[in-house]
Amino acid sequence: MQRIVDFVLELDRLKAVTRKIRLRTTDRYENSAEHSWQLALLALSLARYAPPGVDMDRVVRMLLVHDVCEIDAGDVIAFAEQGWEEQREKELAGVTRVFALLPREEGGAFLSLWKEFDAASTPEARFARAVDRAMPVLQNLANDGQSWRENGISHARVVKRVQGEIAAGCPALWAYLEPRLEEARAHGWFGG
Amino acid sequence: MQRIVDFVLELDRLKAVTRKIRLRTTDRYENSAEHSWQLALLALSLARYAPPGVDMDRVVRMLLVHDVCEIDAGDVIAFAEQGWEEQREKELAGVTRVFALLPREEGGAFLSLWKEFDAASTPEARFARAVDRAMPVLQNLANDGQSWRENGISHARVVKRVQGEIAAGCPALWAYLEPRLEEARAHGWFGG
Repeated sequence: MQRIVDFVLELDRLKAVTRKIRLRTTDRYENSAEHSWQLALLALSLARYAPPGVDMDRVVRMLLVHDVCEIDAGDVIAFAEQGWEEQREKELAGVTRVFALLPREEGGAFLSLWKEFDAASTPEARFARAVDRAMPVLQNLANDGQSWRENGISHARVVKRVQGEIAAGCPALWAYLEPRLEEARAHGWFGG
Repeated sequence: MQRIVDFVLELDRLKAVTRKIRLRTTDRYENSAEHSWQLALLALSLARYAPPGVDMDRVVRMLLVHDVCEIDAGDVIAFAEQGWEEQREKELAGVTRVFALLPREEGGAFLSLWKEFDAASTPEARFARAVDRAMPVLQNLANDGQSWRENGISHARVVKRVQGEIAAGCPALWAYLEPRLEEARAHGWFGG
């Protein structure tokens, strides 16, 4: 029991890892813990658009753990163009450390889910990745492109970054987003 | 799809609902969105201590939606001694409004989960409620009783408030907490 408690208190630290999206409600930057919660509910809400046979509960579990790596590695904006290899090593070391706080069975199960998400190796992982890619796009579309403008991200870079994974994991979501990204370009909501 | 998007953006507002626990990492008050994420992972980590047959994925879904009512109703500290009936009406009206943003099937499923948690009517709901009651206790034990002291909450009130639900939903968790609450009293970590 003490190991479980140590683990869950360590998770507190993800609440201090900030992302690039500002919340419309409070103007502070979003953190990766609340982001993970919102993704889990977006995934469940999108169940009817998931490919047949996708186990939504495994999707949810993956989304709940997918950012735990950031406790040690921090958040890197999805449009960074270098340093990925080094970042990935930090992330793997990070989740390995954090999940090892748990008893072996529980920690191993979480680590497997994290690796499955990371490798996009199953329909569940691909659906979860589509949801993770789509969320900041939805937030920017509701926020006049705040994080795109603040970080100088162009329409072309956004599309290049998100189209493949969203279209592969949840085609209906890409069909929804693509014309709205065009409209956002017409509004001047991109940087770069 | 637009209804799902409207719903998930509305969820942003739960990130602005603050609780009474201060995060050790940032000194700000915790919000109900990141709290819900942490509870889901605490529940999954505690699976070996759940009563036999409890469906952990339903527990997770319940915990993900259990605080959505606070978007409209706000957070009330678990030790408030009056106003519960009025608060409960606000909460029910709040979840009914927010989940109605979704298509009927998805919204209805979330509302059922919320009501099940609220009514503590199944082993899954009782386990989820035990986890929800235990988390702030664990945080206070790691935080020298910060929210107990700030809000003048005595040891007796904490025990009265949490013992029943934690012991009913997850006996092993209460067995862990009870002596530690005694130690916290010896440390002077309570108010009141």
